Amino acid sequence: MKLYDGGRAPNPRRVRVFLAEKGMSIPAESVDIGKMEHKSAEYTAINPLQRLPALVLDDGTIITESVAICRYIEGLRPDPPLFGRGAKEEALVEMWNRRIEIYLFQAISFVFRHLHPAMREMEQQVPEWGEANKQRVYDFLQFLDRELKDRLFVAGDHYTIADITALCAIVRRWHAQVSARPSAHA
Amino acid sequence: MKLYDGGRAPNPRRVRVFLAEKGMSIPAESVDIGKMEHKSAEYTAINPLQRLPALVLDDGTIITESVAICRYIEGLRPDPPLFGRGAKEEALVEMWNRRIEIYLFQAISFVFRHLHPAMREMEQQVPEWGEANKQRVYDFLQFLDRELKDRLFVAGDHYTIADITALCAIVRRWHAQVSARPSAHA
Repeated sequence: MKLYDGGRAPNPRRVRVFLAEKGMSIPAESVDIGKMEHKSAEYTAINPLQRLPALVLDDGTIITESVAICRYIEGLRPDPPLFGRGAKEEALVEMWNRRIEIYLFQAISFVFRHLHPAMREMEQQVPEWGEANKQRVYDFLQFLDRELKDRLFVAGDHYTIADITALCAIVRRWHAQVSARPSAHA
Repeated sequence: MKLYDGGRAPNPRRVRVFLAEKGMSIPAESVDIGKMEHKSAEYTAINPLQRLPALVLDDGTIITESVAICRYIEGLRPDPPLFGRGAKEEALVEMWNRRIEIYLFQAISFVFRHLHPAMREMEQQVPEWGEANKQRVYDFLQFLDRELKDRLFVAGDHYTIADITALCAIVRRWHAQVSARPSAHA
């Protein structure tokens, strides 16, 4: 197996955190998003959609999309279970992972990609869309805060992929905020 | 079990198609999105995020997010397998379902929600964002067309949830397009 990693972007980080929780490591090749290497002909042959990360299996099968890669790893090493165990728990993990992705991870990505000066070259920015997502982030964080009052982790009493998604989303929000300060260029 | 259904919107349809493929039916209560019933106090108590559909289990557990509901149903009735079978196939179904969701289903939703006159009351429209997504839809449909040249279904040789997601996205695109014509009001 070989993992095409994308550095500090939130999706590559999701897969790295997942692997660390499983106590696994996979040989990785770094693809520098800052240098637009994900748009190169070489990487486009791996993933025509030019997104990272990607996992290439020994039989040549290519798996893209972070959660699909995590699900494959879960199949290889089921313990500790990070997608839940049994129909009900698996459904609740799926629900919470998606809620975090749609209302937090993606909303933060839209704020970052459509408002941050560093993204001007990569994204056809629609600032009004970035602004519209700010309120969604705040609203969801308040909802999540209420939900987490009575339990340890996002999807219940165990750490799961939903916690990893939330962690990577919030790290990105923090990073975007602090890197936008003038002092970040010091 | 009780399913809170949302009529012809694409997410409720995904769950209904999934149930039909499993040959199952679940007692359902209709929540009329056109009449804003998904924002009522009664439904907000079921899903604070005010989205449809939602599945209430006999023990009171509430599952929201269409794919989470489908995954629960898959656990109850594994045949025919609509999420793949075995680690590699499950990962490829996850990959394709997400590709269809992110680059097609969601892009079509953005075009519809941010440009269609019928959505003015429900959505704080950002027309520029709707326009930006049109090209993404066309680009992805061309990519999908090339991919489907050599296989029967979206994720491989079997019908899966990725086909259901694609069907519901494309039905929405078609419906938005034909219902925007003046003749639709005849």
